Amino acid sequence: MSNQAKIIGQSLPNIPWQSKTENDASIIWRHTGNPIINWNPSPKTARIFNSAVMPYGDSFIGVFRADHKHGKPHLHMGRSKDGLAWEIDNEEIKWVDEAGYPYQPGYAYDPRLVRIDDVYYIIFCTDFGGASLGLGMTKDFVNFVRLENPFIPFNRNGVLFPKKINDKYVMLSRPSDSGHTPFGDIFVSESPDLVHWGKHRRVMAKGGSGWWQAVKIGAGPIPIETTEGWLLFYHGVSGTCNGFVYSIGAALLDLEDPSKVLYRTRDYLLTPELPYETVGFVPNVAFPCATLHDAETGRIAIYYGAADTYVAVAYAQLNELLDYMKTNSELVPGDDISFK
Amino acid sequence: MSNQAKIIGQSLPNIPWQSKTENDASIIWRHTGNPIINWNPSPKTARIFNSAVMPYGDSFIGVFRADHKHGKPHLHMGRSKDGLAWEIDNEEIKWVDEAGYPYQPGYAYDPRLVRIDDVYYIIFCTDFGGASLGLGMTKDFVNFVRLENPFIPFNRNGVLFPKKINDKYVMLSRPSDSGHTPFGDIFVSESPDLVHWGKHRRVMAKGGSGWWQAVKIGAGPIPIETTEGWLLFYHGVSGTCNGFVYSIGAALLDLEDPSKVLYRTRDYLLTPELPYETVGFVPNVAFPCATLHDAETGRIAIYYGAADTYVAVAYAQLNELLDYMKTNSELVPGDDISFK
Amino acid sequence: MSNQAKIIGQSLPNIPWQSKTENDASIIWRHTGNPIINWNPSPKTARIFNSAVMPYGDSFIGVFRADHKHGKPHLHMGRSKDGLAWEIDNEEIKWVDEAGYPYQPGYAYDPRLVRIDDVYYIIFCTDFGGASLGLGMTKDFVNFVRLENPFIPFNRNGVLFPKKINDKYVMLSRPSDSGHTPFGDIFVSESPDLVHWGKHRRVMAKGGSGWWQAVKIGAGPIPIETTEGWLLFYHGVSGTCNGFVYSIGAALLDLEDPSKVLYRTRDYLLTPELPYETVGFVPNVAFPCATLHDAETGRIAIYYGAADTYVAVAYAQLNELLDYMKTNSELVPGDDISFK
Amino acid sequence: MSNQAKIIGQSLPNIPWQSKTENDASIIWRHTGNPIINWNPSPKTARIFNSAVMPYGDSFIGVFRADHKHGKPHLHMGRSKDGLAWEIDNEEIKWVDEAGYPYQPGYAYDPRLVRIDDVYYIIFCTDFGGASLGLGMTKDFVNFVRLENPFIPFNRNGVLFPKKINDKYVMLSRPSDSGHTPFGDIFVSESPDLVHWGKHRRVMAKGGSGWWQAVKIGAGPIPIETTEGWLLFYHGVSGTCNGFVYSIGAALLDLEDPSKVLYRTRDYLLTPELPYETVGFVPNVAFPCATLHDAETGRIAIYYGAADTYVAVAYAQLNELLDYMKTNSELVPGDDISFK
Amino acid sequence: MSNQAKIIGQSLPNIPWQSKTENDASIIWRHTGNPIINWNPSPKTARIFNSAVMPYGDSFIGVFRADHKHGKPHLHMGRSKDGLAWEIDNEEIKWVDEAGYPYQPGYAYDPRLVRIDDVYYIIFCTDFGGASLGLGMTKDFVNFVRLENPFIPFNRNGVLFPKKINDKYVMLSRPSDSGHTPFGDIFVSESPDLVHWGKHRRVMAKGGSGWWQAVKIGAGPIPIETTEGWLLFYHGVSGTCNGFVYSIGAALLDLEDPSKVLYRTRDYLLTPELPYETVGFVPNVAFPCATLHDAETGRIAIYYGAADTYVAVAYAQLNELLDYMKTNSELVPGDDISFK
Amino acid sequence: MSNQAKIIGQSLPNIPWQSKTENDASIIWRHTGNPIINWNPSPKTARIFNSAVMPYGDSFIGVFRADHKHGKPHLHMGRSKDGLAWEIDNEEIKWVDEAGYPYQPGYAYDPRLVRIDDVYYIIFCTDFGGASLGLGMTKDFVNFVRLENPFIPFNRNGVLFPKKINDKYVMLSRPSDSGHTPFGDIFVSESPDLVHWGKHRRVMAKGGSGWWQAVKIGAGPIPIETTEGWLLFYHGVSGTCNGFVYSIGAALLDLEDPSKVLYRTRDYLLTPELPYETVGFVPNVAFPCATLHDAETGRIAIYYGAADTYVAVAYAQLNELLDYMKTNSELVPGDDISFK
Repeated sequence: MSNQAKIIGQSLPNIPWQSKTENDASIIWRHTGNPIINWNPSPKTARIFNSAVMPYGDSFIGVFRADHKHGKPHLHMGRSKDGLAWEIDNEEIKWVDEAGYPYQPGYAYDPRLVRIDDVYYIIFCTDFGGASLGLGMTKDFVNFVRLENPFIPFNRNGVLFPKKINDKYVMLSRPSDSGHTPFGDIFVSESPDLVHWGKHRRVMAKGGSGWWQAVKIGAGPIPIETTEGWLLFYHGVSGTCNGFVYSIGAALLDLEDPSKVLYRTRDYLLTPELPYETVGFVPNVAFPCATLHDAETGRIAIYYGAADTYVAVAYAQLNELLDYMKTNSELVPGDDISFK
Repeated sequence: MSNQAKIIGQSLPNIPWQSKTENDASIIWRHTGNPIINWNPSPKTARIFNSAVMPYGDSFIGVFRADHKHGKPHLHMGRSKDGLAWEIDNEEIKWVDEAGYPYQPGYAYDPRLVRIDDVYYIIFCTDFGGASLGLGMTKDFVNFVRLENPFIPFNRNGVLFPKKINDKYVMLSRPSDSGHTPFGDIFVSESPDLVHWGKHRRVMAKGGSGWWQAVKIGAGPIPIETTEGWLLFYHGVSGTCNGFVYSIGAALLDLEDPSKVLYRTRDYLLTPELPYETVGFVPNVAFPCATLHDAETGRIAIYYGAADTYVAVAYAQLNELLDYMKTNSELVPGDDISFK
Repeated sequence: MSNQAKIIGQSLPNIPWQSKTENDASIIWRHTGNPIINWNPSPKTARIFNSAVMPYGDSFIGVFRADHKHGKPHLHMGRSKDGLAWEIDNEEIKWVDEAGYPYQPGYAYDPRLVRIDDVYYIIFCTDFGGASLGLGMTKDFVNFVRLENPFIPFNRNGVLFPKKINDKYVMLSRPSDSGHTPFGDIFVSESPDLVHWGKHRRVMAKGGSGWWQAVKIGAGPIPIETTEGWLLFYHGVSGTCNGFVYSIGAALLDLEDPSKVLYRTRDYLLTPELPYETVGFVPNVAFPCATLHDAETGRIAIYYGAADTYVAVAYAQLNELLDYMKTNSELVPGDDISFK
Repeated sequence: MSNQAKIIGQSLPNIPWQSKTENDASIIWRHTGNPIINWNPSPKTARIFNSAVMPYGDSFIGVFRADHKHGKPHLHMGRSKDGLAWEIDNEEIKWVDEAGYPYQPGYAYDPRLVRIDDVYYIIFCTDFGGASLGLGMTKDFVNFVRLENPFIPFNRNGVLFPKKINDKYVMLSRPSDSGHTPFGDIFVSESPDLVHWGKHRRVMAKGGSGWWQAVKIGAGPIPIETTEGWLLFYHGVSGTCNGFVYSIGAALLDLEDPSKVLYRTRDYLLTPELPYETVGFVPNVAFPCATLHDAETGRIAIYYGAADTYVAVAYAQLNELLDYMKTNSELVPGDDISFK
Repeated sequence: MSNQAKIIGQSLPNIPWQSKTENDASIIWRHTGNPIINWNPSPKTARIFNSAVMPYGDSFIGVFRADHKHGKPHLHMGRSKDGLAWEIDNEEIKWVDEAGYPYQPGYAYDPRLVRIDDVYYIIFCTDFGGASLGLGMTKDFVNFVRLENPFIPFNRNGVLFPKKINDKYVMLSRPSDSGHTPFGDIFVSESPDLVHWGKHRRVMAKGGSGWWQAVKIGAGPIPIETTEGWLLFYHGVSGTCNGFVYSIGAALLDLEDPSKVLYRTRDYLLTPELPYETVGFVPNVAFPCATLHDAETGRIAIYYGAADTYVAVAYAQLNELLDYMKTNSELVPGDDISFK
Repeated sequence: MSNQAKIIGQSLPNIPWQSKTENDASIIWRHTGNPIINWNPSPKTARIFNSAVMPYGDSFIGVFRADHKHGKPHLHMGRSKDGLAWEIDNEEIKWVDEAGYPYQPGYAYDPRLVRIDDVYYIIFCTDFGGASLGLGMTKDFVNFVRLENPFIPFNRNGVLFPKKINDKYVMLSRPSDSGHTPFGDIFVSESPDLVHWGKHRRVMAKGGSGWWQAVKIGAGPIPIETTEGWLLFYHGVSGTCNGFVYSIGAALLDLEDPSKVLYRTRDYLLTPELPYETVGFVPNVAFPCATLHDAETGRIAIYYGAADTYVAVAYAQLNELLDYMKTNSELVPGDDISFK
């Protein structure tokens, strides 16, 4: 029997979409034209991946992680009519601080992009005595203002919810260390003002029965509001004798209290299998950072970085996904140990 | 001048076989249809590799390492008419303990399968306060009984000989640590009853002149009894700045005292070169776990895991192999330091 | 020419005090009766060290790190007439949460104790998915309420300022990792409500020309308000081939903006030399956690943990110390890189 | 109400003994003449510690770990009239193998000594491709025969029970790695013949609420048979930023099934506090290896190595100890996970 | 405006060359027939890569790193008419020492080959108590003499300049450690006699703004003398969670004082992108070891090892390269700290 | 029968000396007034240790490692009438470079001091992109000139022979890594001019049967010329679970070819036992850096650093020492593998 959940939000009939081939039992299936962004997409840039997109007017806009040819990552703007073919600026975003003075971070990567009311926020990873979360805003994608860093170092995978909950801004993140962090759980924090953060709770723990997420986990795209809960795609990392493998899973969080996990996929939904995922600058990485989704049909296009080299797209359908999640869920010991 | 050794055992004319192409000087050559088991072979399973097969009636049977889509490995039964196309159960083997009560290991991997008299034994790696050897038996591949763990943690690559030697069960294994063990030699132990084990001897040491086996070595398939000694395929591991590389070599052990090494290949016989060996969940792994062999012709089909993702097959011919081994052998210092 | 700075606060003529012996050029000198708390101070407790004291009525009160004989640390109350002989409870502090329900942390250590208005706050290190800061309050040292954890893991050495600055609570801390952290700088954060924290700034960086603080630094006692700035004693850690050495230094922070460092001692002021500092559960540790100070005379008694085994006391005189700091100060590159 | 347990065994009124001083609440108290063996006890030997003693005729005999002045440890015989003043051979024990040929281990350390029927067994740590357990026997302390190594590498702290249980020899041990092992639980194994070992069970796990035993634990002296169970002293190891700390605890194991833990002290009973324990070749080590005990009075003299430099003695009284253990016991999660 | 620099040296119109395809903005572009040497190039050899070539008579000669099938690397001679199709000896080079006695190194890898006056020198990495530089000479590529090791261990990437500077031999090298060195800068040393070396200076430091060279750097081919300076191709290494990535950059050193860096490319010029670079024995390695260059046209053919498995060729044109370097140069802090 | 060897050199009847107490079998015995330099020897200096002394006129002069109170080490001059009571400058040595310009190293430690002809040379450890050897000279201990660094990084324990051998300067050193090096052998190199160094040979290897020198070894004082060979005191390091232990041993090197080891003590001659050796900034260190010796009597006073905190003195008598060395010598495998 089928689920009747709805995405709460806009109807976006023009997002990228491909139907699943017959007999394909996958819950997430790949776009056949992957990767949609390849090596050396602009004169300055070696690789684009782990990037964030959203609807903007009747087309699409995005903030992209662009590893320059000297190796350091920066954030670049991009625009697309169809969400698949992207025009990306050769120059990085120019910031000012809150006083209006020009300010550029030494590096910035793995952006997430969210609209709350009429403001667009970008959360990214940057240097604050080590890898930490940076926060910025824009109203027009022309003028960008750097805001307060939300947390003390070290932290990665900061993901703002797309609206206030109980009158508070809410952010997911993963406390980390300053290197190739070999551990990590997803926490949630809240703020009255986007400056002061507190009431930190652990949402989900790495590990449990699923080795695909045994080393660490991290929130992916901005959570999608549905009638049944917040739908969160996240990455889980497995440790092998030849390095890390990043796969994609999903969880459903309580609408009112997102530290409460309702469902969480026991299995990964997508793991690196194809050449653009298994070979590249960092082999075996599938790292979701954004979705486009259509409230009308429940269609979801997931944008993920592949092998720290490419941008790829995969698809899911809300009710099929929720049906699957409800019967293939497994909470991890520690998902319910949120405080003290 | 050619070797006249014989495999001691059944005639099995129906095992997989392909002749070597002309001018191919390889001692082990690959099946052209590799890999024979690909990604996602069943709804529950992501990857099958490092698995064990044997003849059963007039067809073939196997115990397979199946990494479920949550990442944990379990053992699944499979059956094949030709040894190449396999039907593998979607559900893992169900065990009872010796008292008849249901019992399931948390995980199980890298099985070896052997028949001694009328009993089939499965040796695998499982959790016993860390990665250790588990032992089970079946008489019909329907009812499976878990037996005593043969050794104290930590251990991997347990390989039972296919018959008693001097009235004792004999097992090869590699004492390990609880992680991605960066060292390891092959030991042999004996037992009157498959419960109590002793007279441990070191058979072969890692290292020596061969860097392909400089980090660790581990026994592969069940040793093949020949008129000249026990033929053992084993894996050797090389350490690079980007992780481990697993290759395949061979040794000949004394029939009466298998702690005595007669020959041991100085060079690897097969190392990861093709895409299904060099790219996958763990790149650069060729890990042999079973053979099918025909006493009549000396044909040997070697089953090996590739990249912790695929099952592949390679071939060798007994007399050609032994001729090669006798003229390309190099014992490693320590191969003769077996005790105290 | 002598400094005329004043401690802003109470006159406390009854704090412990010993004058320096003649010809002693030390800026901090040890109490001759050290250690003032020795091994096994109560039936339940093996070692007391790294503890916090303050005036209370006409005597003194303290919150002590007590390592129980099973090895885990807990917080115990203690009372003293003269600040040197302490009666310490055999039972740990009993907490309730904000709803009034009993609540006990699994472990708690390295407390700091501060009074802001009429409330006493205790900041300590506790388990929050790893070593993190915990916060509690009491008004009477009888009823203790556990408050929100101020930060996401991992963090140590949380030190609240003794009054609001620009109408905000202000806290020093050191972001850490989950082990024996081999790095660490001092940060400052502010909060409107002790629940939500933000505006994080780096105050001081480890390292620089001083090897005594090359590995990490951490805030020590509650800062002392003086007419010239906030006086902060802190610990610096040196790394040797046989482990860490913890020494004591001092800094003066701007009264209005404590992220601004005015002076910082180039040299340590006290390093482990005497047997109770160089031998014990963790050799070579001098770890300051509290002061008692007299506004009238500028006398300061510094309480420091010694060798993770003892409580010891040392003395300093405000104006002598400030004179010294002004002429022996060296800021470290990074002390002025506080944001983004 | 007092315990009426009895030690099952000989009356030995001449073992070392000192009564506890009044008001001393310790359950184990130190001999006032410690250390009883000091630096450089013989021309060849730098340090004697971690050694085993037992009654022999009307005096005492021992097997001692003697670190020679070149740094390697060997086993030396020693004799004493009173158990406190020891005459120790300058030469190490000379072994023959089971065929009667001379055989010497490259190094041997941390011996345990036990009499079963009329044979004396020595279990020690020696090189078997890394640190492993060696086993030898003597009937007269003149002729020593090296037996089969009981286990595959790597293992330490092998402790034989002083009689067969259910007609099997029983041995405690700790599976280890080849370095300064940072983990380890106590296992028990049984053997029909001292050659083949099996039915391995985990007896007790490291960790739990007691940080004094958080890193690893290892069996100490030969278990003492009492009317209530096997009394086992063991060492527990705590990890600090400046290295390991070894303390002493106790457990009571079931008489018939020693894999069953009846009681286990939550707290350590003795931890390094005095100079001969906190300073030396390896600071902060108290490592128990043997007891002398008197069935008549329940007196127990515990011999322990101090700082890998000295031999020291401590005392306990059986009923006081058991009373204490019954009311201060805490099993660790994992103590009851013994198999598969 | 275009550069008019010249290569100082022979005209070599017959070196390999392919023009860049139109619209290709690369400064270094790949040979379309890559790799030019594939897996298993001779019976004895598994992989050839990281090798050195030079003109010899009217054809080309080379010294090749050949990893034998036992895993150890040795040096083999090879000859080619066109610089692309190579005939490589199956046997390694046979050496004598300076007294004329036969001498073979245990292993030898990553050779560089240079002619100074009428003598050809080979510098390679070999065992001298760990990975160190070895030096040998030949006048005829038939008789090879091993000379003194230039430096104390540990060192890699020794590169001799092709003529004396200020009457001294000059060598670049990278001081290393004995493992997979995670750090390293390029130094220069000089010698009057190829035996005694001194006046060591640091030429270039790893790191700086370019993450592609953040872990370590090492000199590549023999520097090319030009009218504007010594042109040095070098490798830079980036560290990812799945291992190292080796890319190619270039620097221009002062003709008279090669410790002085005139230009240094901010970005890599070539990074692993194609399958023969991203997949193999060590994925993601592009490691330049030699060039052939034509003074007449400024054409440069760069020979680089790919994935520690293949030999590949890339092309550059001198003036285009220098133009690029002058406008895309960034010195790293430390490039100018050469001594004391 | 007694040895009749002679020290070749000056008669120095006024060096420190104490006869051994009766019944003391030690070959090296401690000065009873140790330590001769204690904590905080000057206002600027925390600890003096690992220092070098020599005769100068009719008294003594020395170059001392002084760890300043900010933790960094520098070199200070000191003078003494009796070699026991030292007046040490509060300011560090001021250097000029060879062009006469002032130059100061960032840090300098573990000096050795030697006179060759009329020049005094100081070899020390300093920063050259990591811990490396620095070299300086003086003729009057007033003007100090910094010379070329003899070796590429990383290196420690540089020790010049006190005269040319075969017309070459000769230096012992230990190639190291940039941290707390866990390995290391002693090498020898020669130079025609103190600028260019070559003909590197390995003199002695760590390890062998002696665990006291299993981790690394390093040359200590300037070798003493005797009629039987160069007498070299050196340090050997043992690795324990609580850090390194540094002991003192001795070797006799061939007069004409000091890469040839004639004798080498199997056992340490002195190991940390007394409080000033076992407790301090780095516990368990005895590190010899200099000797004073009297040709007339064969008396030798050895200066060694204790616990990285103190200067201590020990004594030996030449013929007793040589007699002992000849009958207690054990070369280590590798002592004779000096090249290629």
